[in-house]
Amino acid sequence: MGGTPMKLPPFISEHMAAIDRELDRITPSEATRPTALHRAMRYTLFAPSKRVRAVLTLMSAEVCGTAGRALPAAAALELVHASSLILDDLPALDNADLRRGRPSNHVAHGEAMALMAAFNLFNLAFLTIARNYEPHVAQSLTALLSSSVGSEGLIAGEVEDLLATEASVSFDALELIHRWKTGALFAAAATAGAITAGGRPDQI
Amino acid sequence: MGGTPMKLPPFISEHMAAIDRELDRITPSEATRPTALHRAMRYTLFAPSKRVRAVLTLMSAEVCGTAGRALPAAAALELVHASSLILDDLPALDNADLRRGRPSNHVAHGEAMALMAAFNLFNLAFLTIARNYEPHVAQSLTALLSSSVGSEGLIAGEVEDLLATEASVSFDALELIHRWKTGALFAAAATAGAITAGGRPDQI
Repeated sequence: MGGTPMKLPPFISEHMAAIDRELDRITPSEATRPTALHRAMRYTLFAPSKRVRAVLTLMSAEVCGTAGRALPAAAALELVHASSLILDDLPALDNADLRRGRPSNHVAHGEAMALMAAFNLFNLAFLTIARNYEPHVAQSLTALLSSSVGSEGLIAGEVEDLLATEASVSFDALELIHRWKTGALFAAAATAGAITAGGRPDQI
Repeated sequence: MGGTPMKLPPFISEHMAAIDRELDRITPSEATRPTALHRAMRYTLFAPSKRVRAVLTLMSAEVCGTAGRALPAAAALELVHASSLILDDLPALDNADLRRGRPSNHVAHGEAMALMAAFNLFNLAFLTIARNYEPHVAQSLTALLSSSVGSEGLIAGEVEDLLATEASVSFDALELIHRWKTGALFAAAATAGAITAGGRPDQI
């Protein structure tokens, strides 16, 4: 009864549970060889999360007609996000020992395994798309995801952020960093939902 | 005239030149922002190389009928390979200061930029496939590439290799490491060529 302002509406909680089940389905179990790799992947992937990007994918798909085919794409966004969290915390980047109160991935699993886990989470995003959609949807989603990560997306934002810490930074540069580093994946999440509901990127 | 046993046959040299042109076409220039990222990517991507994997893709496509559509897939294999070379040399992995007589990527560009370059080379492989093929070919190539990299491919091999250096290793384990770490990309290279020539994976 009652409920605080922080309580999530039921449809969000249902989306989050469905996303977690999908991530569990597509990610090799901790018993699958190489077990150390899959433990490290799951350590970050299943850390407490509101799954904001994936929920956005599902909501976007619903608005465009149906979320019935959106789960693998939503999961792919979370895989990329989890990969980026592991990277961000590495000694060469933010050098963070903790993430939300837990040891960061490289502290818990060692730096080499954290790197491999980050790469394999990222790789699994593309594998998931290729295996779960008909060809033209898979192609649109792959192009969308790789565009949002690459030279005009998440990675570009990380690099500009790295360089900005070494110099004073203009407001324009800061705006670009945030657009690339955070905005690119959010935009991709919303667009991905629309694509799985049957939209073409140029219609969205 | 003459020629030593090390001299490559002309068709190999022509393939290598075509692959280099394709890699140059698809990789952002050093003048493209973020310039530090693209310099670091090109530093390893255009280091002297025989392009063995990409040449294998082109030869496989020729044997299957035509290499006319094979170049982007061949380039994607080289992008993944270059990414793996940067990773291999990192302090947390092989900690190699030199690769073939040149400073390794993280020595020349710093560890953070080397990491971003490795990720972006890998990402560019998927972007290249999505942008250069019709949907069903793009889907087959994406599934092939991500399978050959992931939990039963290159990354699994890297992880088993890491773990093997910490313990005595059986012959069976060593065989598995090499099959995953080196064999997976070679097999993918040959299969990719056949797919671009019109074959389906189950025919190959």
